Amino acid sequence: MEKKSAAKSFGGTQGVYSHSSSVLSCDMKFAVYTPPQEKHGKGPFPVLYWLSGLTCTEENFITKAGAQRVAAELGLVIVAPDTSPRGEGVPDDPEGAYDFGLGAGFYLNATQEPWSKHYRMYDYIAKELPALIEKEFPVDAARSGILGHSMGGHGAITIHLKNQDKFKTCSAFSPIVAPSQVPWGKKAFSNYLGSDEAKWAEYDATALVTKHQSKTDILIDQGTADNFLAEQLKPEIFANAASAAGQAYTLRMQEGYDHSYYFIATFIEDHLRWHAERL
Amino acid sequence: MEKKSAAKSFGGTQGVYSHSSSVLSCDMKFAVYTPPQEKHGKGPFPVLYWLSGLTCTEENFITKAGAQRVAAELGLVIVAPDTSPRGEGVPDDPEGAYDFGLGAGFYLNATQEPWSKHYRMYDYIAKELPALIEKEFPVDAARSGILGHSMGGHGAITIHLKNQDKFKTCSAFSPIVAPSQVPWGKKAFSNYLGSDEAKWAEYDATALVTKHQSKTDILIDQGTADNFLAEQLKPEIFANAASAAGQAYTLRMQEGYDHSYYFIATFIEDHLRWHAERL
Repeated sequence: MEKKSAAKSFGGTQGVYSHSSSVLSCDMKFAVYTPPQEKHGKGPFPVLYWLSGLTCTEENFITKAGAQRVAAELGLVIVAPDTSPRGEGVPDDPEGAYDFGLGAGFYLNATQEPWSKHYRMYDYIAKELPALIEKEFPVDAARSGILGHSMGGHGAITIHLKNQDKFKTCSAFSPIVAPSQVPWGKKAFSNYLGSDEAKWAEYDATALVTKHQSKTDILIDQGTADNFLAEQLKPEIFANAASAAGQAYTLRMQEGYDHSYYFIATFIEDHLRWHAERL
Repeated sequence: MEKKSAAKSFGGTQGVYSHSSSVLSCDMKFAVYTPPQEKHGKGPFPVLYWLSGLTCTEENFITKAGAQRVAAELGLVIVAPDTSPRGEGVPDDPEGAYDFGLGAGFYLNATQEPWSKHYRMYDYIAKELPALIEKEFPVDAARSGILGHSMGGHGAITIHLKNQDKFKTCSAFSPIVAPSQVPWGKKAFSNYLGSDEAKWAEYDATALVTKHQSKTDILIDQGTADNFLAEQLKPEIFANAASAAGQAYTLRMQEGYDHSYYFIATFIEDHLRWHAERL
């Protein structure tokens, strides 16, 4: 692991690091915020993994969400990985589309050529990255949570439901909750996973929640002025499935908010406190 | 004036607007945050003008500083203009340097060709933009303040000292306080204003404070780990001149902080409260 940059932020440290990922067969960058208490020999700290949405890198969340203020207060470590494998030899959408390939790994393990060699973000987030974080940073692995935005909200809910012993708490902003049923997900899943839709179910939050309910409640915030709400996000599909399955959840429709980081910044404090209370 | 975008943020609205500037002879964009109280018919509100540093546009502050949270609480309007004239016909540094020309207007009225036609950011910030804001937004012009970062800290202090009836309060992050004595300022002033250094003094905070003390105290935050501290910023030059002239100021050397928005985000709350108390 190599430190690429570090800046003091609310008394703690906002760092960006790189490492060679054996799961993804490429070098990867990720961001880690460590709270000020670390400098006073305290810790280990609860750790939250933030999964970003389409087109993002490890930078978007740490520069725009304003999470460091509350993480400093609560004594939380926050890890923000990149959203896909990167670098020479990693294939991209042939037309450079924003919603597939680079910046759009969809937090799954691809099975189809040419994607299956590098596009294994599921294993990267669920296994390889936490192992590295737990080795290199003062985190208490038993108090890990996961959250994310849009494509990253999809990642957070699916990875939580399948790894509840690892990621004990889960929340999401504007998540893609039913990728098998919406254009973004259909495009990504058919390319990464092939045409057999039965294989898609293991990465579909709505399909998963009927089989694996979480022991904890899941918090979802969704803006009502989000341009992607009606076509791509459709939180009611997940809400209906969760209610039918007996999954506890809170879906907050936030009046007038859009899909941007202005929305995330407004409610990130609520999410961090919600995780901290449960961890 | 045309609205380019608007997003709900902490209950208020973060907008970006454009207009045709007669002072700068080009179209200009600027950002305005209006607090949630505006939607309930309250106001007019105190207004703060934020001046950004080298390379920035109207976007940097509104996406990275996290100021909307506190502006919403305090009921403040915050205006964030661009840092130079823009567009076709506006000359740039011949080599595209980051520290002169586009993105580097230095908040002065250029007197030298080819800069003097468009590079008139002093008149734009001190006169044209506030007149537009006061016409279009629910602000109380009698409660206006100004603050900024780096080149924008230079702009804030100099414009405040020369326009105290207009901008009643002033603060700065990592300001260029003595441009006539440092490389960034010498390059900009010699090109924009010519070689007669006597003309530079009217845009040099250290020179100005010996002549025009402010009726209020000036707050300056400076990180000790700022890469530009020793060569370009040198806050002690201003502090010494201010002390000698009887100008009240608070210079806080913030241990371990750098020149980035992580530093600004950490202390922006202090600055907004400081202005709000005085307005």
